[in-house]
Amino acid sequence: MRVGLVGAVALIAVGASGGLIEKAKEAGLEPIPREIGELYKLIDNPDNPLTPGKIELGKKLYFDPRLSKSGLISCNTCHNLALGGDDNVPVATGHKWRPNPHHLNSPTVYNAVFNRSQFWDGRAKDLEEQATGPIQAPPEMAMEAEGAVKVVESIPEYREAFSREFPNEKITIETIGKAIGAFERTLVTPSRFDSFLQGDRGALTAEEQEGLKIFIEKGCASCHNGVGIGGGSMQKFPLFGKYKYESVGDFKGNREGLVKVPTLRNILETAPYFHNGATYDIGEAVAIMGETQLGQKLTPEEIEKIVKFLGTLTGEKPRIEYPILPVETATTPQPNLD
Amino acid sequence: MRVGLVGAVALIAVGASGGLIEKAKEAGLEPIPREIGELYKLIDNPDNPLTPGKIELGKKLYFDPRLSKSGLISCNTCHNLALGGDDNVPVATGHKWRPNPHHLNSPTVYNAVFNRSQFWDGRAKDLEEQATGPIQAPPEMAMEAEGAVKVVESIPEYREAFSREFPNEKITIETIGKAIGAFERTLVTPSRFDSFLQGDRGALTAEEQEGLKIFIEKGCASCHNGVGIGGGSMQKFPLFGKYKYESVGDFKGNREGLVKVPTLRNILETAPYFHNGATYDIGEAVAIMGETQLGQKLTPEEIEKIVKFLGTLTGEKPRIEYPILPVETATTPQPNLD
Repeated sequence: MRVGLVGAVALIAVGASGGLIEKAKEAGLEPIPREIGELYKLIDNPDNPLTPGKIELGKKLYFDPRLSKSGLISCNTCHNLALGGDDNVPVATGHKWRPNPHHLNSPTVYNAVFNRSQFWDGRAKDLEEQATGPIQAPPEMAMEAEGAVKVVESIPEYREAFSREFPNEKITIETIGKAIGAFERTLVTPSRFDSFLQGDRGALTAEEQEGLKIFIEKGCASCHNGVGIGGGSMQKFPLFGKYKYESVGDFKGNREGLVKVPTLRNILETAPYFHNGATYDIGEAVAIMGETQLGQKLTPEEIEKIVKFLGTLTGEKPRIEYPILPVETATTPQPNLD
Repeated sequence: MRVGLVGAVALIAVGASGGLIEKAKEAGLEPIPREIGELYKLIDNPDNPLTPGKIELGKKLYFDPRLSKSGLISCNTCHNLALGGDDNVPVATGHKWRPNPHHLNSPTVYNAVFNRSQFWDGRAKDLEEQATGPIQAPPEMAMEAEGAVKVVESIPEYREAFSREFPNEKITIETIGKAIGAFERTLVTPSRFDSFLQGDRGALTAEEQEGLKIFIEKGCASCHNGVGIGGGSMQKFPLFGKYKYESVGDFKGNREGLVKVPTLRNILETAPYFHNGATYDIGEAVAIMGETQLGQKLTPEEIEKIVKFLGTLTGEKPRIEYPILPVETATTPQPNLD
């Protein structure tokens, strides 16, 4: 009897969208684990194990503009958790209103833990390493590593949290990055698409499922896959022809000319698109990807359905209490707007 | 027996710090009401009655940088709820990194509801009116009123919230200000000093009580009084002699040369001090106030005790869940960094 029932369920699954779920899994699309233990196993870093205290400390630092030279810019300025984890502007803009010199767009921090590497050229191996970059970059937070350490060391509550969470380490820009990275690891956003992959066939409408089918069959999933639905590899861009907006900025990828494939999770919340933020139009972005990466012109109907599918990747954001930061002291470096 | 007991309690009260509580009340110092109904009666605006939906809408708008021309600056940028309700920099700095043309310092939004008027020159009658100013000011959020309205109207969730909360009003910069003002009215921070005024004599240490006594006897409370411990009047500044930092900026007060008395609540969290943010040193600020407003040189011991008392005004901040903002649409004006 049990065998018969399992057989019947399998039959229904394949007959309806079950086949599509299998197809999606075969294409390498993976859900964010629903079970907390499994999720934490996936997002944890053996070199920087997650603890509640470290995550809370990292959250404070993430929202703390005093880590910037001006005292006005925090991680959250460009990776705004209220706005899909990015900033809505084409080019990242920081200290003294300087744009990113390569006209690069701020990627979302949500689900960035699933990226195999960080930054558009993939130069940082993880979030902990990434977090140390923008703090110091002159057109971003423009703070010298030493200045960031001084800020943290001058505030007793921070100092105590660091000695609790990193008992055998001095406070350095690297430990600051480790705290921030720990917080960022928790910023994952499960969506309807995860429920679908986990077997809830009703989680996606018929049209969204058609979009997913096209997404797989056209080849989008050959790069946008894994738990991040992207983020797992570096690719040539453009692979075919010319990128319509290639004149915007001078970014040509890493040393091998490769560009990180971004996550598609929450993509409808993270316009403008591409490494150089060249268009706010998701339909145009999909069309361009079809041409430059798949060498084919997608029809308006196909694009529309793919966009419907992309909507299923808008996930539920973690609830975050806005932190009340510990007050600075007489030894805290003062902000410098110049 | 009952009469006898009341008499005994009264005797103890006068004998210990009871006298000081009375003295503080006579000096016009008032607590933030502990009872919610009484508090809401105090912070409400008959022309813009508080409702949960309006407060929530206002919170979203308060944190929404899309109300700025650049898409990068929100009310919370300069009035950061994580940092005592202000920004820690001497001079408010906004769109294109422009400083306030008069070198004015951002005042805290916490307890601003208790101010009789808003802005350093008192030109706005309430928070609702104030909120419309920085959105439009070129060195702040630099957004045209029309642009802010377009942003709100282009986002269905906002549009629906406005029609629910302001059913008989068109969406204008004024209704946007009303929503933001409603949220800001709730940003009150009761502290140990309120418990003291409400009769809990143990809420302040002996040293803090001495500081309070000096604060009253020297005359500080003649301007820094009311529920806001300031914010209730416009005064000549300096009243005696010359203000040490008068060359910083060109602000000379309102048309009558008067400057708004700021609240002292959370003062230890809102350095730098004065309308032109000229010093980070609270001790120096107290000394200057003694000289310029009271015409007397306070001793280092007096200053130290007054500062101890000021520490009792650091209040408990409301817990705020960081909002997830509704996503923009194809008709939302795009950010403009120029």
